[in-house]
Amino acid sequence: MDFNHSERARLLVGQVERFMQERILPNVQTYEDQLVHSDDYRQWRIPPIMEQLKAEAKAIGLWNLFLPEGEHGPGLDNRDYAAVAEVTGRCHLAPEIFNCSAPDTGNMEVLARYGTPEQKEQWLNPLLAGEIRSGFSMSEPAVASSDATNIKATCEIVGDEVVINGQKWMTSGAGDPRCKVLIFMGVTDTNASRLKRHSMVLVPRDAAGLTTLRMVPIVNKLGEPHGHGDMLFENVRVPRANIILGPGRGFEIAQGRLGPGRIHHCMRAIGAAERALQRMCERSVSRVAFGKPLADLGGNRDIIANARMAIDQARLLTLKAAWALDQHGTFGALNEISAIKVIVPNVLQSVADAAIQMHGAEGLADPELMKLLTIGRLLRLADGPDEVHRKQVAKLELSKYLKK
Amino acid sequence: MDFNHSERARLLVGQVERFMQERILPNVQTYEDQLVHSDDYRQWRIPPIMEQLKAEAKAIGLWNLFLPEGEHGPGLDNRDYAAVAEVTGRCHLAPEIFNCSAPDTGNMEVLARYGTPEQKEQWLNPLLAGEIRSGFSMSEPAVASSDATNIKATCEIVGDEVVINGQKWMTSGAGDPRCKVLIFMGVTDTNASRLKRHSMVLVPRDAAGLTTLRMVPIVNKLGEPHGHGDMLFENVRVPRANIILGPGRGFEIAQGRLGPGRIHHCMRAIGAAERALQRMCERSVSRVAFGKPLADLGGNRDIIANARMAIDQARLLTLKAAWALDQHGTFGALNEISAIKVIVPNVLQSVADAAIQMHGAEGLADPELMKLLTIGRLLRLADGPDEVHRKQVAKLELSKYLKK
Amino acid sequence: MDFNHSERARLLVGQVERFMQERILPNVQTYEDQLVHSDDYRQWRIPPIMEQLKAEAKAIGLWNLFLPEGEHGPGLDNRDYAAVAEVTGRCHLAPEIFNCSAPDTGNMEVLARYGTPEQKEQWLNPLLAGEIRSGFSMSEPAVASSDATNIKATCEIVGDEVVINGQKWMTSGAGDPRCKVLIFMGVTDTNASRLKRHSMVLVPRDAAGLTTLRMVPIVNKLGEPHGHGDMLFENVRVPRANIILGPGRGFEIAQGRLGPGRIHHCMRAIGAAERALQRMCERSVSRVAFGKPLADLGGNRDIIANARMAIDQARLLTLKAAWALDQHGTFGALNEISAIKVIVPNVLQSVADAAIQMHGAEGLADPELMKLLTIGRLLRLADGPDEVHRKQVAKLELSKYLKK
Amino acid sequence: MDFNHSERARLLVGQVERFMQERILPNVQTYEDQLVHSDDYRQWRIPPIMEQLKAEAKAIGLWNLFLPEGEHGPGLDNRDYAAVAEVTGRCHLAPEIFNCSAPDTGNMEVLARYGTPEQKEQWLNPLLAGEIRSGFSMSEPAVASSDATNIKATCEIVGDEVVINGQKWMTSGAGDPRCKVLIFMGVTDTNASRLKRHSMVLVPRDAAGLTTLRMVPIVNKLGEPHGHGDMLFENVRVPRANIILGPGRGFEIAQGRLGPGRIHHCMRAIGAAERALQRMCERSVSRVAFGKPLADLGGNRDIIANARMAIDQARLLTLKAAWALDQHGTFGALNEISAIKVIVPNVLQSVADAAIQMHGAEGLADPELMKLLTIGRLLRLADGPDEVHRKQVAKLELSKYLKK
Repeated sequence: MDFNHSERARLLVGQVERFMQERILPNVQTYEDQLVHSDDYRQWRIPPIMEQLKAEAKAIGLWNLFLPEGEHGPGLDNRDYAAVAEVTGRCHLAPEIFNCSAPDTGNMEVLARYGTPEQKEQWLNPLLAGEIRSGFSMSEPAVASSDATNIKATCEIVGDEVVINGQKWMTSGAGDPRCKVLIFMGVTDTNASRLKRHSMVLVPRDAAGLTTLRMVPIVNKLGEPHGHGDMLFENVRVPRANIILGPGRGFEIAQGRLGPGRIHHCMRAIGAAERALQRMCERSVSRVAFGKPLADLGGNRDIIANARMAIDQARLLTLKAAWALDQHGTFGALNEISAIKVIVPNVLQSVADAAIQMHGAEGLADPELMKLLTIGRLLRLADGPDEVHRKQVAKLELSKYLKK
Repeated sequence: MDFNHSERARLLVGQVERFMQERILPNVQTYEDQLVHSDDYRQWRIPPIMEQLKAEAKAIGLWNLFLPEGEHGPGLDNRDYAAVAEVTGRCHLAPEIFNCSAPDTGNMEVLARYGTPEQKEQWLNPLLAGEIRSGFSMSEPAVASSDATNIKATCEIVGDEVVINGQKWMTSGAGDPRCKVLIFMGVTDTNASRLKRHSMVLVPRDAAGLTTLRMVPIVNKLGEPHGHGDMLFENVRVPRANIILGPGRGFEIAQGRLGPGRIHHCMRAIGAAERALQRMCERSVSRVAFGKPLADLGGNRDIIANARMAIDQARLLTLKAAWALDQHGTFGALNEISAIKVIVPNVLQSVADAAIQMHGAEGLADPELMKLLTIGRLLRLADGPDEVHRKQVAKLELSKYLKK
Repeated sequence: MDFNHSERARLLVGQVERFMQERILPNVQTYEDQLVHSDDYRQWRIPPIMEQLKAEAKAIGLWNLFLPEGEHGPGLDNRDYAAVAEVTGRCHLAPEIFNCSAPDTGNMEVLARYGTPEQKEQWLNPLLAGEIRSGFSMSEPAVASSDATNIKATCEIVGDEVVINGQKWMTSGAGDPRCKVLIFMGVTDTNASRLKRHSMVLVPRDAAGLTTLRMVPIVNKLGEPHGHGDMLFENVRVPRANIILGPGRGFEIAQGRLGPGRIHHCMRAIGAAERALQRMCERSVSRVAFGKPLADLGGNRDIIANARMAIDQARLLTLKAAWALDQHGTFGALNEISAIKVIVPNVLQSVADAAIQMHGAEGLADPELMKLLTIGRLLRLADGPDEVHRKQVAKLELSKYLKK
Repeated sequence: MDFNHSERARLLVGQVERFMQERILPNVQTYEDQLVHSDDYRQWRIPPIMEQLKAEAKAIGLWNLFLPEGEHGPGLDNRDYAAVAEVTGRCHLAPEIFNCSAPDTGNMEVLARYGTPEQKEQWLNPLLAGEIRSGFSMSEPAVASSDATNIKATCEIVGDEVVINGQKWMTSGAGDPRCKVLIFMGVTDTNASRLKRHSMVLVPRDAAGLTTLRMVPIVNKLGEPHGHGDMLFENVRVPRANIILGPGRGFEIAQGRLGPGRIHHCMRAIGAAERALQRMCERSVSRVAFGKPLADLGGNRDIIANARMAIDQARLLTLKAAWALDQHGTFGALNEISAIKVIVPNVLQSVADAAIQMHGAEGLADPELMKLLTIGRLLRLADGPDEVHRKQVAKLELSKYLKK
């Protein structure tokens, strides 16, 4: 039992914090100023400061931190990366700067683990280099994606090709001008058993037959310059070689993908919650009403204490999930992963909401606080809603008693 | 003890419901299509369908329903209007169509009660006719508006003029092209006692020295075509005759204004919460996951039941507040008004949030659900944050024991 | 819409309050002093002060207030009685003093509505006179009573007799030395349809074959001098004429019985919650820590305000349930009755728990606060647990959407 | 970062679990049968099975596990002992059997750390041997003990004696026939500064002038055979040598005492919460209503999942507190200790309450579930109420911002 981070994690956390402090935070406003806001995603541009900061981070080795393999970055295990990821969660720009942002991270992991040499050459390498970006096409509008067996889009194998049809309405990253490839999940064989009928396929972003219906608003924002694309696939044809791992193995890949991904999300969300708490505290000691700082009024200290206690507990369980994943693999960390997937986004949403309340109406107009709230709210649904993960925790708990 | 609405209220509710069903709801999409979205509020336009629907509503007498006086509308008391207001709360367009939307309602009440004949002629009549709109300038960025004695903007009387200086950052309705006048609250006499130093002044929207710094985003939306204006007053000069009721009487007016206004907000919010619950129920019986409608999964029925119970309780307390206001005036309804101001927005926020969750990620992209959520969230801060009203309820409660 | 109680209710509330103040509250300690505490219920005695106060209340007509029929008391409708019942809920002795305590009230209603002249003569009249008391035998230990079709005890008709077998473990009032009769519910005909197989039978408390296994502790108290008896029926024989309404009609009776009973429980619980809030407030203004009264520390005012708001809302919904029952009968009040059955006990439990917390460890040793907490906790299970009533509210809500 | 317990802790946990399973749990009923229940504490007797089990535990070295020093037991650090303490928390008899029950543990720590050789000889040794027991006299009825500077009882130094006066109403363990000594805290010097005016004094349980007014009921139980004594000290005289550490050093001792004590309480409470969850799960899979096990009805799985998640988080933070105490001393663990003192008792209370609800009315009559609930409820007040610890967490959090 040791709650100290490893020497290595501490060193990296220190470096990342310094880079955040010296390079990222001072450039947030520049980024916002350079950002093109438009309802038409085709006009979105990447703020030049982003590519510059990426180059700087890469140059000093703060790059691909999420990858457990050491070829393309420091090669951290989950528990060390967790410490780093929390720091990056405090600023929405940071993950991308360190080439650690979703959905690229998950896509890179999939390609690193299951890709053919050709797939790696074509897609993984430029992703690892931060030259291109990618999207992930799974959720469909007409069916409950919380139950992945509902997925209805098809990727039929016809000779040497895969013919893709369907609508994928929450393709994250699809509006990014650098997005060059999507990983698409669909049914290859409707006759196969429930867990063996889906495949994952690499689809170039500019494939014929692929239409972007719109960028989907999330809490009233389109998320420039990344966005969530509502994508229509109509007889999109790609080489059969674009299937990852093989036909019918989509679920297998999806399961391996989700464990680390959820932990990463949660660690960043812990950092985001810390940032919200910081904003709340700063406000509470500086703003005066009825002759006192807000911190000395009514139940405000209880709100602050509750936030601190909720974050501290959520962090520890997330770190334990990361540790369990390192020690025992995804199946040894199932309970913890589902648990944090429920707990952490709710903590973030509620701390951010409380921080907004402490700011009065200014909170509702505060871009950073609204971003923090939105991340929390979205994560209560992304990668499975609260309800599905709570169900999983209960199932594991009750299995102890049903076995007997 | 009788929980039936009056015959009159029932008749009006029926008429309003029919008009909602036949005229408003079928035209919501038209309105959205006609709406100009722009970051520059000067390009905002009123969708023609709005003026057409206003004319229709006015023609059949569904007009100025909020006014207790019967000259310009049916002249309902608060408890009858409450029944009607709930119905209008189910669609964000409805209040304006019946000329019952904030901040005009509060401004009209103030002018009706305290205005001079000239003030009424110039501003009240066109407002009652729905020809112009108005704004209310109270909140300031640098101070906690929850404590109104913090207000720092000035309206100095200089000869026959009032000279206005200060920043009012949440002037609701200021982006509306029809907005012609603001009611401004500021300090006339810094030497006067704390409750007698403020005045309310009528300021033409196009007064010299009045600058719109920006429209303030609320939950990431600018609120076209109405908006909340961040307004800078620099040596704005208006005739002394523009002071309402007299110098130093701003607080007196504010107090009278807020009672009915808060009840109206709450009644509409009850209607909004009903709409959110309806959306949640519809989704729960139509969407299938894991082989069952969502309504039959996990704790979803508990969520629905809790929403129904919360709304029913909140409605009754709001109706009691309206009744108490009718029977005993604002001071006889203090406890109830503060209580509903805490309860109802929280109920709406939480039911809307639950409705979003029931919709999965689609909920976060659903314009209506996001509007409902935003209303609830904003109302937890507008007209005094939860904290201030909770404090008031506790003060009244404890006064029973401190007197002894 | 009128929130005033009727003239008649106001008069009676005034009388009951006066009697509470002048006669009951000053004698609570006498009652406690006269009470025999023993683990052996056969040693329990009725404190003489109880019979004396009953006689006084009866003499001035504050008697059988719960009965809607006017022969044996004032004959109040539910909404008027609700006002009175709340007052009696503030002191645990009051309901019995006014001959309005469970389970006698429900039993008397059943006999008044469905009893034969002989049954009325033998049991109803002495109950109405307050000369004897009664018990209600429904819950069984081995099955979930929340689903009444689970009831397994039998009352077989054999010739002119009914032969009763089974265990009824929560027979309320069975330890009272005055308890002379139980209403027992069991299966008469296992072949009948699910809702027509049960009957209610009158069983003398001293019937041969009827054993009291123990008095059941509830939150560590046996509830002298009333108790909940764990009763074993072994070939208990009573005349066939003891069946109420007729064989197979047990459910029909049970349903009619529960509506008013639940409302009565809730109204008294509102009174109990008011008492807990009063105790909490008194403590908060009189106890000093860290140099201030508790009322001025941390979030204590929020706790007080939340309690006030919760009670006020719960009361209104309970009154509406009573009104709906008067206007539309049990089926017109289903939603409200289920809703208050969830809401009110939870409000009482949580306000009582908060009042205890405000008293520090003294709260855990305070007999009155522990009684209030126990009532709330018990009511979350008695007459159906929260879960069953929440389910009912959801079912009614969703039925609006499933019908379409 | 390592979430494994040490080899040593794992070994001991295994031994303790085995002893629990083989010796303690099978004898719980024997203990209850041998227990004398009486309202008069002087009739209380120690069930012989207790002394027998103590002897067995002592014989195999499962003794004084709480003591960090290795002379009298295994000498575990806090983090190892935490693992063991959790196991003992699952059964209310276990802590005493391993000579690890409050208030002896705290008293032994105080004597071990600050006692004179004579004090150790006379009191510590028999306590370590499990031959006698002790009490702790701190809380007073008239003042808020949450603010320890309120303590008003006096222990005046008069020549070679200390003269003690005052009322200490929650002297834990005072009803135990084996209790031979109390540690009393009172004012020695009213002129000293606020933190230097109190002393701790050893008072023989049978000292002249010491009266037991009553055993205080906690949630309706007197807690045979230990109890909480309401003790009156009237001119109780003890030798000056009975002062611990020296006059005016009471606070210094109290502070050192509370850190480990609170962690021990919390670890046992985690075990108690696990036991409540176990009971809840067992019930949910075995009890049927409406044709399904309770586990498959409504939101019951959510309740189970929420309990699991709350316990897992609370445990980790408690372990971190223990680790921080080992690493950095009490002042390095302040935030964590206050946090768990709020979190853990609330988790236990709420899981126990939910377990009761899952059992229906049987839950309210279930001795084990009521014990678990009572421990949780009491711990929300013992050693400082929730409110004081939440305040402490907020103070530490805000200090980060006020320093700047």
